[in-house]
Amino acid sequence: MTRPFNFSAGPAALPEEVLQQAAADMLDWHGSGMSVMEMSHRGKEFISIARQAEADLREILSIPEHFKVLFMQGGAIAENAILPMNLSRGGRADYVITGSWSQKSAKEARKYCDVHVAATNEGDHHTTLPDVDRWQLSDDAAYVHVCSNETIHGVEMHELPDLAARGCKAPLVIDCSSHIASRPIDWTRVGVAYGGAQKNIGPSGLTLVIVREDLLGQALPITPSGFNYQIVSDNESMYNTPPTYAWYIAGLVFQWIKRQREGDLTGLAAIDARATAKARLLYDHIDASGFYVNTVARNCRSRMNVPFFLPSDDLNAAFLAGAQERGLLQLKGHKSVGGMRASLYNAMPLAGVQALVDYLKDFAQRHG
Amino acid sequence: MTRPFNFSAGPAALPEEVLQQAAADMLDWHGSGMSVMEMSHRGKEFISIARQAEADLREILSIPEHFKVLFMQGGAIAENAILPMNLSRGGRADYVITGSWSQKSAKEARKYCDVHVAATNEGDHHTTLPDVDRWQLSDDAAYVHVCSNETIHGVEMHELPDLAARGCKAPLVIDCSSHIASRPIDWTRVGVAYGGAQKNIGPSGLTLVIVREDLLGQALPITPSGFNYQIVSDNESMYNTPPTYAWYIAGLVFQWIKRQREGDLTGLAAIDARATAKARLLYDHIDASGFYVNTVARNCRSRMNVPFFLPSDDLNAAFLAGAQERGLLQLKGHKSVGGMRASLYNAMPLAGVQALVDYLKDFAQRHG
Repeated sequence: MTRPFNFSAGPAALPEEVLQQAAADMLDWHGSGMSVMEMSHRGKEFISIARQAEADLREILSIPEHFKVLFMQGGAIAENAILPMNLSRGGRADYVITGSWSQKSAKEARKYCDVHVAATNEGDHHTTLPDVDRWQLSDDAAYVHVCSNETIHGVEMHELPDLAARGCKAPLVIDCSSHIASRPIDWTRVGVAYGGAQKNIGPSGLTLVIVREDLLGQALPITPSGFNYQIVSDNESMYNTPPTYAWYIAGLVFQWIKRQREGDLTGLAAIDARATAKARLLYDHIDASGFYVNTVARNCRSRMNVPFFLPSDDLNAAFLAGAQERGLLQLKGHKSVGGMRASLYNAMPLAGVQALVDYLKDFAQRHG
Repeated sequence: MTRPFNFSAGPAALPEEVLQQAAADMLDWHGSGMSVMEMSHRGKEFISIARQAEADLREILSIPEHFKVLFMQGGAIAENAILPMNLSRGGRADYVITGSWSQKSAKEARKYCDVHVAATNEGDHHTTLPDVDRWQLSDDAAYVHVCSNETIHGVEMHELPDLAARGCKAPLVIDCSSHIASRPIDWTRVGVAYGGAQKNIGPSGLTLVIVREDLLGQALPITPSGFNYQIVSDNESMYNTPPTYAWYIAGLVFQWIKRQREGDLTGLAAIDARATAKARLLYDHIDASGFYVNTVARNCRSRMNVPFFLPSDDLNAAFLAGAQERGLLQLKGHKSVGGMRASLYNAMPLAGVQALVDYLKDFAQRHG
């Protein structure tokens, strides 16, 4: 039986192979007599799982040695506070607003530091990307924060800003929750990359923080010990009990990524090429349809999250019901934007996008 | 095949029925076509799972209506900071020290409020329980914090302190991580009960906070929104994406608890009686052995965590190797205490404790 295609924005679809492995391992991981959920995080079994997952992630994303990989909790919303606690030193931080998520990040950071909005696309209803050359960067910012893929508004930075080229020495911080592990990251441009796992990496409840070593050790005194990057790093993400099962599933996903092939491409390169092909298929059809509309500027359309609208909201219920019947799940748009949203994370195959496009055609013919 | 008996202090053994259900549901929960890990937390499927879990927990623990149940993240170590952020109002808080965990809680709280140690068993190496009548309670404490079961030192409060009887109006806060859902809680004596899930409830990465309604809404301005009890409560634990899979597993455990029977007893009463029987079997054998030693005062020995020592540390490696051969797993004591520790959480059957006792006899005969 074919599984339905699940377009959820997160928690989101996982590769079927990963779920099958998890089911097979459930009562007895590798002959240990234990489920992964039942293992002490300090036992040799879980330590081996944890180390392998980190090694695989480092390989996939080519993470340099001078970056630490932290496996934390609380998601991006918690990081909105944890990050300025760890990095701002109570001074100034620059935020670039490109949608709901970066807006939320900036708002939360105001509790801990002096937030300066360096650029915003609010005037364009979050459908464009402010030109980096026009960002009003502060001289003394502790960091510059961006959301490199806006899950709700469907705006993606296809290239990370080169702050050094702007003469800015502050580290760039990227909230990459919803496109991490879908493309390479240029680490020469990044100080911290963070993201909730529940899009491309695994179950919710796990947060990845990848931080350049020299940025550790400057947390505000009010930072909870369990969220102090230095303490978490010193304890190899086991200062508090980590979300062990989510960490294990993430490890299975990393191994799945490494196994991927597209023509001559392997691993992340294959995922990256597939993401481009999937997004092109859907956007091309939307643009040509004369029925569906995506309002995001073409140079910054997200490959991961594709919000689109029907000609009338009156059609939404029928559209969703018909999609469900065809096994196309969780297409409802975010409540703040309305319409529909198709999230095309790594686990979504091209066949799923093709099935969606076929349905889009049929529905438009019947209602156009 | 019988599974081994897993004595881990946490993450800890789960009921086999729960793991079997989780494996069966893995690729398709109730015909939804989705794994629970793949569901939007805002979809009707996960909402039904979340609500049922809360309703079952409320039933099991007889939680009154005027308490809110929050499904959070970060474990007890995060709560050590989150709690004073939410409750202290920056004033004074009383802490009772009975072992490593309450000590850690008090230390972390000093970042946010004026911590007063109302009582401590440090002079007894954390093997006794300070008499409630002698606690030096402050007149103006925002709350009184205890750890009602010390996982490392094996000290348990078999009755919660009656602060009102001491003329103290401050709410009692209990860190009940390692014995929650093993016995009833007298809610007339409690303001907040919190605990990491990874002992009696489910996988790590989920934290339960059960808070009396009138204690909401007084968080310090520096409290991260995702950890502000009022905000979490207003958003039914979905202000940030909750750890959905851990929440689901907790729900399966709650249903398992409701199904338990011991003679005429059902549910939590059955669990409670079984916990007493299991602990008695092990402590009686240790005390009578003339070989093994548990140093905790008899009136406060934990039913959940039983630390014990062999006559010589030189025997430890042989003891652990022999245990492993018999399928008795994760018996090594906490590094700060040494020796052995058997954790007898809800998922450990009496047969597992009997198997341990049989091994204790054999080992002592061979090495005594």
